[in-house]
Parts: sequence; structure tokens; C-alpha cells
Amino acid sequence: MPVLRFLWILILSVLATGQVWAAGPQHPVLLLTAAEAPPLRQALADPGQYPLLTESYAALRARADAVLAQPITVPVPKDPAGGYTHEIHTRNYYALQAAGVAYTISQDPKYARFVRDMLLAYSKLIPTLKNHPEAKSSSPGRLFHQALNDCNWVVYSIQGYDAVHDFLSPRERRQIEDGAFRPMTRFFTQDLKSWFNLIHNHGVWAATAVGLTGYALHDQKLVNMALRGTQNDGKSGFLAQLSQLFSPDGYYTEGPYYARYALSPFYLFAQAIENNQPELRIFEYRDQILRKALDATLQLTNTDGRFYPLNDALKEKDWTTRELVAALSIAAQRYGPDNTLLALVRQQRQVLVSPGGLLLAKAMQQAGPTLPPYARRSLLYRDGAEGTEGGLAVLRTGPLAAQTSLLFKYTAHGLSHGHYDKLGLVLYDQGREVLPDYGAARFLNVEAKEGGRYLPETKSFASQTVAHNTIVMDETSHFGGKESEAEKHAGQAWFSDLSKPNAQVVSAKANDAYPGVQLQRTVVLVQDSTSGKPLVFDVMRVAAPASHQFDLPFYYQGQLISTSFRYQRAAAEQRPVGKRNGYQHLWQEATSQPGAGSATLTWLDGPQFYSLTTATDSATRLVLARIGANDPNFNLRPEPALLVRRQLQTGVFASVIEAHGEFNPIAETSVGSRSNVAAVTVLFNSPDATVVEVRLVRGGRYQLAIANQDAAATTAHEAAYAGQTLRWQGPYQLRHLPE
Amino acid sequence: MPVLRFLWILILSVLATGQVWAAGPQHPVLLLTAAEAPPLRQALADPGQYPLLTESYAALRARADAVLAQPITVPVPKDPAGGYTHEIHTRNYYALQAAGVAYTISQDPKYARFVRDMLLAYSKLIPTLKNHPEAKSSSPGRLFHQALNDCNWVVYSIQGYDAVHDFLSPRERRQIEDGAFRPMTRFFTQDLKSWFNLIHNHGVWAATAVGLTGYALHDQKLVNMALRGTQNDGKSGFLAQLSQLFSPDGYYTEGPYYARYALSPFYLFAQAIENNQPELRIFEYRDQILRKALDATLQLTNTDGRFYPLNDALKEKDWTTRELVAALSIAAQRYGPDNTLLALVRQQRQVLVSPGGLLLAKAMQQAGPTLPPYARRSLLYRDGAEGTEGGLAVLRTGPLAAQTSLLFKYTAHGLSHGHYDKLGLVLYDQGREVLPDYGAARFLNVEAKEGGRYLPETKSFASQTVAHNTIVMDETSHFGGKESEAEKHAGQAWFSDLSKPNAQVVSAKANDAYPGVQLQRTVVLVQDSTSGKPLVFDVMRVAAPASHQFDLPFYYQGQLISTSFRYQRAAAEQRPVGKRNGYQHLWQEATSQPGAGSATLTWLDGPQFYSLTTATDSATRLVLARIGANDPNFNLRPEPALLVRRQLQTGVFASVIEAHGEFNPIAETSVGSRSNVAAVTVLFNSPDATVVEVRLVRGGRYQLAIANQDAAATTAHEAAYAGQTLRWQGPYQLRHLPE
Repeated sequence: MPVLRFLWILILSVLATGQVWAAGPQHPVLLLTAAEAPPLRQALADPGQYPLLTESYAALRARADAVLAQPITVPVPKDPAGGYTHEIHTRNYYALQAAGVAYTISQDPKYARFVRDMLLAYSKLIPTLKNHPEAKSSSPGRLFHQALNDCNWVVYSIQGYDAVHDFLSPRERRQIEDGAFRPMTRFFTQDLKSWFNLIHNHGVWAATAVGLTGYALHDQKLVNMALRGTQNDGKSGFLAQLSQLFSPDGYYTEGPYYARYALSPFYLFAQAIENNQPELRIFEYRDQILRKALDATLQLTNTDGRFYPLNDALKEKDWTTRELVAALSIAAQRYGPDNTLLALVRQQRQVLVSPGGLLLAKAMQQAGPTLPPYARRSLLYRDGAEGTEGGLAVLRTGPLAAQTSLLFKYTAHGLSHGHYDKLGLVLYDQGREVLPDYGAARFLNVEAKEGGRYLPETKSFASQTVAHNTIVMDETSHFGGKESEAEKHAGQAWFSDLSKPNAQVVSAKANDAYPGVQLQRTVVLVQDSTSGKPLVFDVMRVAAPASHQFDLPFYYQGQLISTSFRYQRAAAEQRPVGKRNGYQHLWQEATSQPGAGSATLTWLDGPQFYSLTTATDSATRLVLARIGANDPNFNLRPEPALLVRRQLQTGVFASVIEAHGEFNPIAETSVGSRSNVAAVTVLFNSPDATVVEVRLVRGGRYQLAIANQDAAATTAHEAAYAGQTLRWQGPYQLRHLPE
Repeated sequence: MPVLRFLWILILSVLATGQVWAAGPQHPVLLLTAAEAPPLRQALADPGQYPLLTESYAALRARADAVLAQPITVPVPKDPAGGYTHEIHTRNYYALQAAGVAYTISQDPKYARFVRDMLLAYSKLIPTLKNHPEAKSSSPGRLFHQALNDCNWVVYSIQGYDAVHDFLSPRERRQIEDGAFRPMTRFFTQDLKSWFNLIHNHGVWAATAVGLTGYALHDQKLVNMALRGTQNDGKSGFLAQLSQLFSPDGYYTEGPYYARYALSPFYLFAQAIENNQPELRIFEYRDQILRKALDATLQLTNTDGRFYPLNDALKEKDWTTRELVAALSIAAQRYGPDNTLLALVRQQRQVLVSPGGLLLAKAMQQAGPTLPPYARRSLLYRDGAEGTEGGLAVLRTGPLAAQTSLLFKYTAHGLSHGHYDKLGLVLYDQGREVLPDYGAARFLNVEAKEGGRYLPETKSFASQTVAHNTIVMDETSHFGGKESEAEKHAGQAWFSDLSKPNAQVVSAKANDAYPGVQLQRTVVLVQDSTSGKPLVFDVMRVAAPASHQFDLPFYYQGQLISTSFRYQRAAAEQRPVGKRNGYQHLWQEATSQPGAGSATLTWLDGPQFYSLTTATDSATRLVLARIGANDPNFNLRPEPALLVRRQLQTGVFASVIEAHGEFNPIAETSVGSRSNVAAVTVLFNSPDATVVEVRLVRGGRYQLAIANQDAAATTAHEAAYAGQTLRWQGPYQLRHLPE
């Protein structure tokens, strides 16, 4: 029956247009090929057979139909992100892509006519365009304020063109190719040549736009530029991007938020390459780097699916984002469906209308209502193309639904969106941010917030070192806050041991953040048997050539409940903590000189109490701060922080962070509102080794001994303190001493 | 079979204890009578018959079993709320009550022995007690820091005693009655006599404690004191409380948060009265005031079930609270089950193990999986025993799941927990607080926050006028912030019209908040056909004998997105807005003199944009403020506000508040981020009438005309402005003028 129906539609469409043009290979050729359409049509013939595919196709058609129902609107570009013309052109390219698929599946000529008419309109507009009036970056766009969005436009619109190619007359094709797509690819590869050749997420989108256009227009020159750069030397272009932007483990150097964004063109272009140049074996490239990249991007989400907001990132973004829908369907086609991802597919509620989407829809049908859980594991990712530029540790513990996750960042800088946060920590307790990362200062697509672009406070605050949970010397950021300098140096993995689920250890160094200053941070995620939630031991060691001021900030969320120390509160006048490098954005709410011992800060976030306990000496100062000073346009969120400040040449910041107790205002119970940690003490610190002790309120203590200069498994270390000598072998020793 | 089993258990228990004491009427007599036990036993015999009852009984037994499994612990009182002894004594009284019901149903003597042994321990402790060491209020407790908690202890423990009464030897009974319960009731009725006689939620708990004890001990004198006060004159006690604390509509004068708390003893004592003195017909009292009170308390919750935080209130508290579980089961028994409450019962996941609980469990079985929705309606509640002391309006619109709710408060003061917020507004959009009420400054049961008591900032900030969305004159609170003065005056309903779902209107006055100053506020909840979400028109009229400074604060939540006006931001130094009456707690973040016209502030809360647009004149000043100054212990939440400040003798503050657009960071779309309101203008203001115009961006305008001196339906009014004369009849006229 479907075949008959198809023939009937074909006849109708011939009658409607008077002709069917077909020359060269049958289109579409890009993401969904002409040969792949019939089985999809069959799968969709019975709507109940694969509901997920049916719904995805219906959603896609609805997206096209909504725009189809209105007059073609192709306005002269005027507005920034969030504004009218921006939103219309964005809507249009999604509609072009959707109508293309709808035409491929249904062969209903109304979709082909829609794509034709809209692309003809664009082919008249585009040649008239200069740079966008709101363009402000070094890569201005024409349809949009930045060229990146112009690339998005091409990537989606060319799919629409590819789908209706055989429907168009040669003259229409020429008009559209010469009026819309060739000017665009010329714009990218000539006017913006150096930008096009960047190894950067923009570059991936640009290469994909040009590469897809090349395949659709049967212009192998364009394809080659996309694959190997405008010089065709392989120093830039898609293959170089695949080689350089991911580490051998699949970690994307800009961080997970941009990995998510780049995965979309990576997978789309790879899919077109496989369909057109299968001999490149692109999905096997670099030992299946595309598979590893997807896996790493998914692992770098929190329990609620939100991407860890390392570097410039919007914290709301989660893994249901459309970029991952495409990647999951294509990965299913090329690597086979992975049933542990079905729970995510169900959240996304859509698949591509493609062979991969069909595979996922089938797998979903077979899986039934209870899907296997997606397991987030403890992981060590190397950064850098060779895996030699530091890395990122993710330590996790607890049942899947109530996981604690500790991120420890000692990666390379991460290109233009990188933050100056070597050895930074981010801690989550389920969906709650215990030690948050600020992310970027940006309100995506909100026109009133500078057209939805990155706000100035991203540079002046969010990317600065003091905006992170890591150490700052002399109120200056790592590498002097200079990207060119930061790009030269990565952190360094020192040692790690994930073999013991109840005590996962990672140690890393950063010896270039400040000239001549050695920084080493060691974290342990300890599942203590007497408390339900884990303890995070955090030992930051500093060794400088001379005495300096060091600040170790800990950001938190929620309400301060109690402190073990007295403080002087800024009651009737409040001033910033400092003058520059992000400090000018912190209100100084209170200061304290707690004296030697341990200082504990307890806060409440929702139903959960949290405490941070840090070792103090007689000169330690504490600053309670809140983001928001020198923020002329209210662009910053007023979140609180504790800064531990010490003047020293060499020394150790030792702290424990923990969740404890429960606040239940409905049952009117409040239990365990006090920290389980009695004291944190630095017992010993030498160039060779550091020993820290954590005493618990319930009795018992932990001793963590760390090797600073020689992390070999067989090297013996010793530390003498308080009349005793501790000896151990290897990079670290964690002892639990019951009372 | 149950009868045989019962006999068998009876025999066993005789064997175990050597005797069964039974004299006088068979116990229990309080909430669940001996005669009511057999049908409950039968209903529980098959666990699958009424799952909700089965689970409730299992939970209750588990609560008893958990404490039973440990040694009896009756510590000498020492700690404040949230501390060890507080939590243990609280746990104990719940366990005593639970074990009592478990014994009544199961007749398992282990429960009776547990209640006996624990009460014997209390009977030794209680006579030794003086005031609690942490007692700080004028009504100190003995077991707890405040007598209120001692009353809670009696109310629950006496149920345990009542249940095992027949199991105890006369000597044990004497020991427990003379050692535990009589000292407690003497303490309440003699040592704390004036407190006991208060018409206040504490008084209700005290009366219930003494009344239940009276019935259980067959001491009618105690019962009479509980019903009619220690002087037996009916000026205080339970009946006076029922008469005076509720308005004829069931509105509880302290507000919904305390209504929830008081409903528990009201229903518990009423249940015992009905079981012991049915001739009082307590559930029919005041035209079924108990039914009306429950209905009003449920209606005064937001869509998410949280109680509106009027007066001192904890904002987290919702209608799943245990107090309402008891009230719902008892109401079902006495007034018949109400199927529209089954959705709430399902959320609560428990019922009383009682005839009413059985009715609810049966209704739940019959209802099936899809329960009828609970409908929150637009309502006008009168306040005061006679219904003459102002009131509270709740205007609602939108589908149940996405309701907008506007509260307008012109009640009486509300006793010692009342706030100085005459004519205050609170606005909700589904679960989001658009114009929030701060509630109280308190962290319930969090020991580190002053033992979980009300914090000093409740008086110094949260109860002050400037902490609310209502008008403040000369930076002083209504009634000079004096409770005694505030208790003399209520607001005054002026006119209202809920007959048009798309334009609900309420107007009220407060002419005593400041000497000689007339305040009138009129609000309209407008469902404009061109925008999805409603508009709130807000017209606050002021007429004073001389010129004064008036501030109208609007609190909001989330991030400031844009303003239509320029402002001077406190960049590097921040000071409080004022010196006293709550102003000392507001940081002045920015100020503006916007000039004549309209000023719009737009903010983002989650996915939703909100705007406030207010009419300004050349002298209007705007203050952007944030809570948190002069807060030495970080007790306040740092929430933002806009204060509209004008110097005037008579004038009108006219504003529109609206939700608009959507921010979707996952789909990366942002639509409608600008206000739909083009301008708000005061066209006319005289002693007789006020006319305000609201112009929409999409074209069209509204004109709202308000009668200020004569609200009779037949009175004609006119207002002349801009060369035209507007004439209307009656208290108001709202016209929509399409462009």
C-alpha cells in the first residue's frame, strides 16, 4: 500500500508542477538519503508501530506546517539575538530543514514549494547584505549579528534544499545556489577566512556549513575546504578539529557546555561524509573519537542532566537539548543503539527521522516501561589532542538518584571561552550545587541583556580566578588573566586512585599559574561509615618564592546558618573586597580573624545542611562576600562566598566540605544541623610531603598523607610531628583511626 | 475470627500482667472510642481492602515500634528547639500517641507496657521540673522551652494514656495522673492562668490539653475550664476561641499559617467533645464554623499547596502537614467525606486510624486513579468574630494547574503574629511568587538560629510595613508599629465585584494606619484577550492632611532584566535606605528620578518574565533595594524590591503587574521579554473619584474609574480631564477601548 500511495503522490506532484526534474545522483544526499526514505515511510505507515518515531515526525511536520501557514517572511536583518528578525530567521531555518524531511517522507509537494519559495526569497535578500547592523564581534554575520548564526542557518537550510533538489527546475537551483548558498560559503571561506580556519566550535559549525553545501551542490572543492581548511593543508578544517579539539578520551577542550554545542555539527557533517565519502571511515576516525566525544559529553552532566558549567556556560542547559537529539540518533545508526541511553531518549521525547532514529524508536518499543538507568561514573579525562594537557576528574559516590559529584579541573585553558580556574573544584549533591561554578554572565537570547550576548561581567568577573573555588595570589588571576599566556600551560595530573569506592583520591598541580609558584591540590571523596553523605577532603598546597597573599574562595548557595567563628559584619555600609580582577564585584559582607584552630561555616540549601570546615592559623582571615558590587546593569546573581585569606610563602589550605542533617519545615523537624567535623589540622608540611588530620565529632579521625615531589608507587615518605613519625610508601596514604 | 483473636489477645494480656483492670466507662474515650475499634480492626484485617488505611496504620505502628525498640529515654529538659532533649520529648509524645492507637487496634500488650513505662518515667520527671533553662518567652515551658510545646506533649501523651487506661492498675493510673498530667494541667491553668485564658492559638492548644485530660481522667472541672476558661465565665476557653478567632466565613484571624496550626487542637478537642458531650453539638456550633474554618484554611493555599505566608509564617509549610491530616479525617467523620479533597488526601498519604480515616480510605478506593481536582476559587473573606473587621480578598484566574492568584489583605491586625501590612498585596503565578510576602524571619527548629524561635528580624523587619507590598508614610510603620494600637483598627472593604471572570475587582480602605490619612487601594485582575497571562491593575490612593513622603514597595524574585528608566547604581559603596522601621535592613542598590510618564521594571524568575509599570510624575523617585543591611547574624534572605517614592498630600500610585513571554535556555529561545504595557497614567483624582488609564503596546487601552467617597450602586460620578468628561454610575467602571 505505501508504494501505491507513493506513486500516487508522485503523479499528483507531477500534475501539480508540470514536471519532475531529476539529474545526477538522486537527492537527498546529506543526512537522510533517498535510499533510506522508503523504510522510514514504512515504519511511519502504522502510527502505533513506533510511537516515538511517529511523534518525532509529527513534531517536525508541525514545525514546518506552522511556518507554512503564514506568508513567507524573510525580513532585512536588523535585530540582535532575541529580537524580531533574529527569531524569524532562526524559525525559518528550522522550518526549511523540517519541511525538507517532511517532503522526503511524504512527497507532499506543498513542502517542496515552501522550501523553494523561501529559499528563492533568501536568494534575493542575501546578495544585498552587508555586515549585520548589530554585529559587534570580530566575526560579524550577515543574516545574524554573528557569523556563527549564519553558519547555523546554512547547516539547516541546506538540508531543506537538498531534500527538494530534485523537485526544482535547473533555473531555480541556479538561482538558489548562486543567490543564497554560494554567497554564504564565499563569505565564510573568503571574507572570514581566518575565522573559518579556527580550531574552535565556531570553526566546526563553519566547516559543517561549507561541507554540507559542498555535498549538496556536488562541489568537492567546497567539501575539501571544509575537511582540510581553505589552504587544503589539513592544518584546519573538520579533520583537524576532530584531531585537536578532543583529547584521546573524548574530552572537548572548551568544556562540556560547548562540547554539547559542537557535537551537533560534528555529528551532522560526519553523517554527510559517511553518506558521500564512506571511504573516509569518519566514524572510525581516531579510534572512534566521535563515540568517545558523545560519551564524555553525556558523562559531564549532573544527575539532573544539566551540563557541568565549566568555562563560559549557561547553567540551565541540559542534555535534552536538540543538539544531542541529533547526535544520539546518528550514533545509534553508526555505532549501534545503546540501551543505557534510552532513558535520555525518553526525556528528549524525540529522535531524528532517520535510520538511527528508527533504531532508537524500535529499541524503545522493545525496552518497555522500565528503562535501564544511565550510570554516571567516576572518571579521569585527559585534556589536549595528545592527552598531555592536564585533565578533569569527576569523582562520584552514592546511589544513582542521590549522587554526590566532585569535579576537579586541571585542564588546559579551553580557548576563548576558558576561565582562569586552574585546580578549581565544583561540588554537587544531587541537583544542588554545594560549591557552585558561576558559569558565564549571560542571558541567552534575552534582547534586553545586550542582545543575549556574553555580558561584560563574563570577562570582568565570571572568568576571573576569584569567581571560582580555587586559589588566588595577590588578588590577580592565573596567568595574569591573559588568554595568550593561559593557552601555553595546562594543569598536571599528579596522582589518582579511584580503586576504593569509599575513598577516591585525585591530586594535581599547576606550576605556571603564577611565576615561580607551585600549586598542588589533592581531593578525597570519603564515604565515612558513620555519616550518610560523603566528606570531601580538600588540601591545597602553595609554595612560592616569597611571601604573598593567597585567597581560597568557596562559593555556596542558600542561607548562612551558623559559624564557629565571630565576625565583624558590614552593617550599615558595604564596600567591595578589592579593586580589580573580579574582586571589585564582591561585596565584603563580613570579616573575621578566627585564630588558630578550625573554622566552620554552615549553610542551608533547601532541606539540606552543608558545612565547610577549614584549618586556620593565627594570621588567617576570613571574608564573607557576596557577588554584586560594581554591577551597573544588575547582570550578576547575588551569590555568597567564603574567602580564606592567608599571607604565606609556603603553606597548606586544608578543608572538609560535607552535607549533613535535614531541615524539614513541613514535619517541623530539623536534625543534624551541626557539622560532623570537629577539626581540620595540618600536621606536617615539607617540600616532600603534607599530612592533614580530620577529626570527627562522633569520634575517630582520618589522616591523609600526600607526596609532593615524588609520586612513585614505591617511594617511601616520612613525616615527623608531635613526637611521632608517620611513614608510608607511594603517593598518598589515607588512614582512619577509630578513637 | 477477629472476635476470637481479640479474646485470645485479651487472655494473653491477662496472663502477661496477671490482671485486667476495668472500672467506669470503657477506654479509650477521647478521639477513637472503644466501640469504634472493632470495625477498624475488621477493615484492617485484609491489608488489601483499604490500602490507605493499612499504610496509615503501618506508619503509625512503625513510629511506635521505632521508639519501643530503644530503652525508654526521658531526659532532663535542657535544649532549645532543634536540640537533643527537645527532639527526644517530641519523638516521645508522638510515640505515646501512636502506641496508644496500636494498642487499641492490636491489643498487643507490648504497646500498653511501653506507654505505661514511659508515662511512669514522665510521672517521676515532671514533678521535679522548674521552668525550662532555655525558656525565654512570657509563657515558659517545663519539658520544652515554651509552654506551647508542653501543651503539645499533653495533647498527644494523654491519647496514649487514654488508650491503655484499662490496662493499668489503679495505682499506676494514680501515679501517672498525679505525677504527669495533673501537674501539667495545674501548670497551665494556675501558673500560666492568664496565658491559658488567651484567645490565641496557644490558648487553643492549652484548652485542648486540659480538656482532653479532663475527659480521660473523668474530671469535668478540667473539661469545664477548657471549655469556658478558668473562671468558668465563657470569656475564654475553647468555646470563646471558636467564637472569636474565626470570622463567620471561617477566616482565622492570625492568618492561614496559624489557622493550620490551630485547626489541629480545634478538631481534636471537638472530636473528644462529640464523643463525651454530644449534647454540645460542637460540630454544628456557629453554623458549622469548624467546617468553614477547614475550608478557608485549604482555600488559603497556593496552587502548590503552600499556605499563603500572611503575618508570621514559614513559607515552606504546605497542606500535607500532619495537622491537616487529623482535621480531614475528623471532618470526614462529622461532615461526610468530600471527594474534592481526595487529591489532597493522596498527597498526604495518610489518614487517621479512625472512623473518619476509614471513610476517606473507602472513598479513595471507590474514586480510582483519577481524582477530582481541588478547585481554588476567587473568594472574599470577612475578618473578625462578627465579620466586621475588614477582610481578605483572593482573586484567581487561569486553569487550575496554572493559576494566577492575587491576595489583597485588609484584615484586622491578627494578634501577636500580625504584620503591619494594611492593604498589602501578594501575587502568585502558579508556584512562583511574583510579589512575595517575606513571611517571618525564622528557621523552624534550627538550633543554631536562636533555637528555632522567631528571630529578632521578624520584629525589626519582617513585620514592619516596608517589608510588604503596601504603602509606608514617612518611613514609619502602620499604627506606629504598635500592636496595641493596630489591634484597635481593621481595614475596611469598600466595594468588590467578582461577577466578571475577566475583570475581578476589589477595593478597600485603611483610614487609621496613619492619623488623619486616608488610604484606599483598588485592584483589578484583568484577563486581557491579547495576552496569555492576566494583568494586575493596582491603584493606591492617598489623602493626607499635609504633605508627607510615601513609599510603595514592590518586592520581587529573580534577576533584574531591564528598566525603562536610568538609575544611579551604588557601585562601590552601599548604604541602607533608612534608619529604622525596617528601612535599616534594606540596602540601597540604586536610585532614579525617572521623570513624568511611566516607569517599567522587568525581571526574570525561572522561565518567566515579569514587569511592573508604574505611573510617575516629575518628582517621583525610585529606589532599587535589597534586603540584608544591619543583619548581624545573616538571618535575612537577600531579596530585591522596587520602592516607588513620592512626596505628596493627596495622590495616586497606579501600577500594572504582569507576566509575559518565556525564557527557554534549553531550546535557546526567548520571546516576549518586553512588557505588554505601554503606559500607566492617572487621568483624574478628586475626593470623589479617581481615573487611571492603562495603554497596551499592542494597541488599545483600559480606563478604570473608581468611586472614593460613595460606593453606592446608583450614585453617578463624573471626572473631567483633557477636555472630556467621563460619567459613570456605581463604585467603579472598567472600560476597554480598542484603538
